[in-house]
Amino acid sequence: MELLKQRILKEGRALSGQVLLVDSFLNHQVDVELMKACGEEFARRFADAGVTRIVTIESSGIAPAAMTALSMNLPMVIMKKSVSSILRDGIIQTEVFSFTKNAPYLLTLKTSFVHPGDRVLLIDDFLANGEAAFGGIHLLERAGAQIAGVGAVIAKAFQPGMEKLRAAGYRVEALAAVTRLAEGIIEF
Amino acid sequence: MELLKQRILKEGRALSGQVLLVDSFLNHQVDVELMKACGEEFARRFADAGVTRIVTIESSGIAPAAMTALSMNLPMVIMKKSVSSILRDGIIQTEVFSFTKNAPYLLTLKTSFVHPGDRVLLIDDFLANGEAAFGGIHLLERAGAQIAGVGAVIAKAFQPGMEKLRAAGYRVEALAAVTRLAEGIIEF
Repeated sequence: MELLKQRILKEGRALSGQVLLVDSFLNHQVDVELMKACGEEFARRFADAGVTRIVTIESSGIAPAAMTALSMNLPMVIMKKSVSSILRDGIIQTEVFSFTKNAPYLLTLKTSFVHPGDRVLLIDDFLANGEAAFGGIHLLERAGAQIAGVGAVIAKAFQPGMEKLRAAGYRVEALAAVTRLAEGIIEF
Repeated sequence: MELLKQRILKEGRALSGQVLLVDSFLNHQVDVELMKACGEEFARRFADAGVTRIVTIESSGIAPAAMTALSMNLPMVIMKKSVSSILRDGIIQTEVFSFTKNAPYLLTLKTSFVHPGDRVLLIDDFLANGEAAFGGIHLLERAGAQIAGVGAVIAKAFQPGMEKLRAAGYRVEALAAVTRLAEGIIEF
């Protein structure tokens, strides 16, 4: 998606060979018009996938997932990274390791919000090692859903997540696939 | 906002005199069309407030805030509850106590995303004790912004947040103000 790639080149900062900072438009300050365009692009790419539900993981995936759900006229479900005192019943959980925070968290889904037979499009801001995506898929499949696809706004294609998901048979679409990062260098 | 109140009466569950569960359309499963309507309503109510930026607190405020930002054609900024390893520079923080999670967290804002002279509309899903709102206002004012207003999708008007904010001179708009909760009872 050219608009997104141009924005990454203009404002993204490669802090190392692993870390791409895009907090001026994607995950701290958010350009909602750009997120709307991303949502429309996901809707276009997955138009034939029979999607019945958009699912994301809090919190940076929520804005692009909400815009995708709006474009596709579908409900959105937010998988939680922590459980509030008022959300205890009917939940399933799996441990996911966050490389960004260098700590594990319990990914949590209330099963009443994903039904057997649902075809889920899992949307997130980043796809890197695939830990969050595989954790999410695990919960969604336990809830009886099929995975219609995985959509990442940005994939770090040099990290194993995208390839591992495809090797496991899942359809993956990245709106921008970064093939190389180095200090000051971003390549698609 | 009648559409929202009807939905709260239909699907909301008063678990006690304090707790209103609305996770089927607001903060776990999300009805994005309803969030879009909420965003348009905030845009209408704050049309004369000279708003330059929408700010919210992760993560349940993000969907309604994104829709408000889209309606008002403004950028959105998400204040964080935890800091990733790649977000360290240029941040300000304040401790906020979460009654829902019964624990404090460090609310975090990167100052480069809020400028002196900005007029901020702070959007969140719930306004109850006002802890999160006052924490957010504290950071935004430290960053040099003015508070154009506070918008809550749902206010628990029998808790002190809304009154305290108004007493401190802030403009508050709640799309649904709940005046009484008891097991099985929700009143506006």
